[in-house]
Amino acid sequence: MKEKILIFDTTLRDGEQSPGASLNVFEKLEIARRLEKLNVDIIEAGFPVSSPAQFEAVQRIAEESGKIITGLARGKETDIKTAAEALKNGRHPRIHTFTSTSDFHILGKFGDKRYGATLAEKRKTILQMSFDAVAYARTFVDDVEFSAEDAGRTDIGYLCDVIETAIEAGARTVNIPDTTGYTLPVEFGGKIAEIRKRVRNIDKAVISIHCHNDLGLAVANTLAGIENGARQVECTINGIGERAGNASLEEVVMTLNVRKDVCCFYTGINVNEIYNTSKIVSGFTGIIVQPNKAIVGENAFAHESGIHQDGMLKDKSTYEIMNPESVGVPKTKIVLGRHSGRHGLKARLIELGYSVGEEELQKVYDLFLELADKKKEVFDDDLRILMGDKIYKEKELYELDYLSINSGTDTIPTATVRITAGGNIYQESSIGDGPVDASFNAIERALNIKSSLESYSVRSVTSGRQAMGEAIVRIREGENSFSGRGISTDIIEASAKAYLQALNQLYKSKAQEMVYENSDLVI
Amino acid sequence: MKEKILIFDTTLRDGEQSPGASLNVFEKLEIARRLEKLNVDIIEAGFPVSSPAQFEAVQRIAEESGKIITGLARGKETDIKTAAEALKNGRHPRIHTFTSTSDFHILGKFGDKRYGATLAEKRKTILQMSFDAVAYARTFVDDVEFSAEDAGRTDIGYLCDVIETAIEAGARTVNIPDTTGYTLPVEFGGKIAEIRKRVRNIDKAVISIHCHNDLGLAVANTLAGIENGARQVECTINGIGERAGNASLEEVVMTLNVRKDVCCFYTGINVNEIYNTSKIVSGFTGIIVQPNKAIVGENAFAHESGIHQDGMLKDKSTYEIMNPESVGVPKTKIVLGRHSGRHGLKARLIELGYSVGEEELQKVYDLFLELADKKKEVFDDDLRILMGDKIYKEKELYELDYLSINSGTDTIPTATVRITAGGNIYQESSIGDGPVDASFNAIERALNIKSSLESYSVRSVTSGRQAMGEAIVRIREGENSFSGRGISTDIIEASAKAYLQALNQLYKSKAQEMVYENSDLVI
Repeated sequence: MKEKILIFDTTLRDGEQSPGASLNVFEKLEIARRLEKLNVDIIEAGFPVSSPAQFEAVQRIAEESGKIITGLARGKETDIKTAAEALKNGRHPRIHTFTSTSDFHILGKFGDKRYGATLAEKRKTILQMSFDAVAYARTFVDDVEFSAEDAGRTDIGYLCDVIETAIEAGARTVNIPDTTGYTLPVEFGGKIAEIRKRVRNIDKAVISIHCHNDLGLAVANTLAGIENGARQVECTINGIGERAGNASLEEVVMTLNVRKDVCCFYTGINVNEIYNTSKIVSGFTGIIVQPNKAIVGENAFAHESGIHQDGMLKDKSTYEIMNPESVGVPKTKIVLGRHSGRHGLKARLIELGYSVGEEELQKVYDLFLELADKKKEVFDDDLRILMGDKIYKEKELYELDYLSINSGTDTIPTATVRITAGGNIYQESSIGDGPVDASFNAIERALNIKSSLESYSVRSVTSGRQAMGEAIVRIREGENSFSGRGISTDIIEASAKAYLQALNQLYKSKAQEMVYENSDLVI
Repeated sequence: MKEKILIFDTTLRDGEQSPGASLNVFEKLEIARRLEKLNVDIIEAGFPVSSPAQFEAVQRIAEESGKIITGLARGKETDIKTAAEALKNGRHPRIHTFTSTSDFHILGKFGDKRYGATLAEKRKTILQMSFDAVAYARTFVDDVEFSAEDAGRTDIGYLCDVIETAIEAGARTVNIPDTTGYTLPVEFGGKIAEIRKRVRNIDKAVISIHCHNDLGLAVANTLAGIENGARQVECTINGIGERAGNASLEEVVMTLNVRKDVCCFYTGINVNEIYNTSKIVSGFTGIIVQPNKAIVGENAFAHESGIHQDGMLKDKSTYEIMNPESVGVPKTKIVLGRHSGRHGLKARLIELGYSVGEEELQKVYDLFLELADKKKEVFDDDLRILMGDKIYKEKELYELDYLSINSGTDTIPTATVRITAGGNIYQESSIGDGPVDASFNAIERALNIKSSLESYSVRSVTSGRQAMGEAIVRIREGENSFSGRGISTDIIEASAKAYLQALNQLYKSKAQEMVYENSDLVI
């Protein structure tokens, strides 16, 4: 009898903490819908106390989803209460609370004397804090998960005490994170085996694992954890997350799937949704997937030699251990155009996993026609961008109304812009070192601002000569940085839009009082 | 006593087989120099029989390098002879020959009756072929490596027979590739242990491993192989290679390094060259490194929360298991400008690992001044591009002499180009769906050609508002595709240059009779 492994997706929490990734509420909702289609078991939707936007996202996902939805909370009462509040209308709410347990973290974060004078005293304090946090969370919900941060580097004896205490306080899931991605598979597996053996009440909780990828071992550690008794796995789409990220959902799931001949475990994942989900997450977060990424990379199933050159390899199984179509890689490129009509567009969107109502469809269709005028061939990726960029977009303060560019090898690059902002119109022109620089200068002149540009990058997000280009701009003001994304068939226009969107983010953050205050949020 | 693990780098062979990667001879030489600085033990420089360019690269690297240089060869006499020819002036030449051993591969590639009527007969034929290939290679060099392709899926008994036979024939290194990335760490480790136990003459050869990453387990499998007796590891920078790539050199090496508390092995790698080498390989191959890539990803040492926001984490070890500077990530961004002068430029280039002669320095300096006029601040990445794009560039047929662009939201995108080709001048203008499309149309009109564009992509390769943008264009003609790369502070100019370079490649392939004929080159 094969045993089921629960898939706990933390793309919207740990994944969204990737530097550079930032998702708006609409994008988070759409990703949550895709995760539901993918049939993950638990969705970690965010960290409610950290900002009103995080709170809203968790709240709306909990209200909409049929899955177990969880929100992260430190051991503090405010954190737990806020998480409970965000989750209260959910069908299956779970509070996920955590404390640091390794000496590194205890000494780093609980250095203050009020937590105890010696390490032993501090440990005792933390044990009590863990109990209290779980017990308090249980006053709101039945389903409480407890994590021992940096468990990978925590002394096994103390770790077992903490776990036992958390279960005693009512935790139904106990998570063992390798927060810093430090352990080797044999060590990590051994730790899980040890916990299973030594924690007296371990049969009252599900053992969960959460592995980081700093040494490239997150997936292997996850498999070693499963082998030794873990029955919940925390992971993210495309393996995104803090630093080198988390265990990649698609790699863990497909290993269990492809190697079912030797693995005694299965998951409930609809593997044919993997490719689409990966595309959506990469598109919304702006975190690219390298071509040589397993399962979902552009080259994962492509061969430089062989097949294409001479078709000599009749049998794909010579080099392919899984069928690309099994994870949802489309067999052929579907191309739409003006002629495709509303019906064709709708059918394709459904195939790509979107659920569009009639009103939304009309909006998408209008945008589709506009795009089909510019691009004769509209590909799946174009549609994904249309859905992501236009449909799930929030109303912004600054909008680019007009842009004109003059540039070339012997020309002084010149840009002219017109921007609308709350009924006002601003227009200006400027020269620059290149067309992008010129357009940024023109925007700054028009709005009479000067921001500190932290980074700027462009990439194409669809292919072909009318490819859509995406620009990402990050600006800094004091302690905070704000990023904006712009998409267009004209890369200069995309850049100008991205800059304006970053300014919009900056504007919004000033309008909204932020309560974001975490400094230790890196399970 | 710790044991040494030999690092066999195959970035220039398996890595270069990544779809989309193609390196010219100059770029390969430069990468080989970086690998030497990194202090790898063996450099696989290419597959000499596959094309004159591959042959030349292997030849020149062998002539220049002090390391063991190897070239790949199938069991065929021509392959082996050509490899020997390419390597003959090398100080430490090694021929690397291989045969397929799994039933999948035997039935797929040796289906013809002349190899035997039954599987058993075919296996016998292949055993003999393996012996002959190694023995023939030994007539040219003492150092011969033998690989059993798809060993990961090969029956252990037969695999042991093949290995024993290859050693008998004179192979000094026997490589066990998990060609399809199919095995789990415990299986792969078990296979190596079994080989060590069962192959009678195994003490006469070094066991090597070569793991692919299709399930995300290449590094874990490599570690399991080492643990069980492998003493040579085949890997690539950034983990590039066929499909999902190979074990990443930096992850394997840094795991052994960071976890030396529990690992009984070491490598000779200069770890502080890792970051620079990664940058160079990514820049030359055009294969991007995802931000969440372990060790060398942009985010590998960055934190979204914490440190930057409030500086509360005094002790980095709370979340960092290795020091970014230890792998060569620069502590601060060094900025050069016009004022830096020749001396400053030279010092920085040396720090970045380039060795430039006086003549080359003058050329770089001139280009540097030109760039410093466009960009007030010249970063390390700009210098890398300067070195890669300008210095190691081959003389091309078509050169972009002039480009002018008119575009914007309300403008019909228009481009004008002037191209020089062998003393002739071609100029034309065209409209298009966007500025890039317009410039491609103008080029086609000017040269009176029409190519089939297979893909087009852009990305920024440096940051800041005067970022350098890189465009990659791939065109198809019949069975072959050709790619071109262009770099400029103006992304439209970069695109036009890339298109011309792809046309140059196409032109060159017609001028040169290609003998490329491999169909099964995927160890």
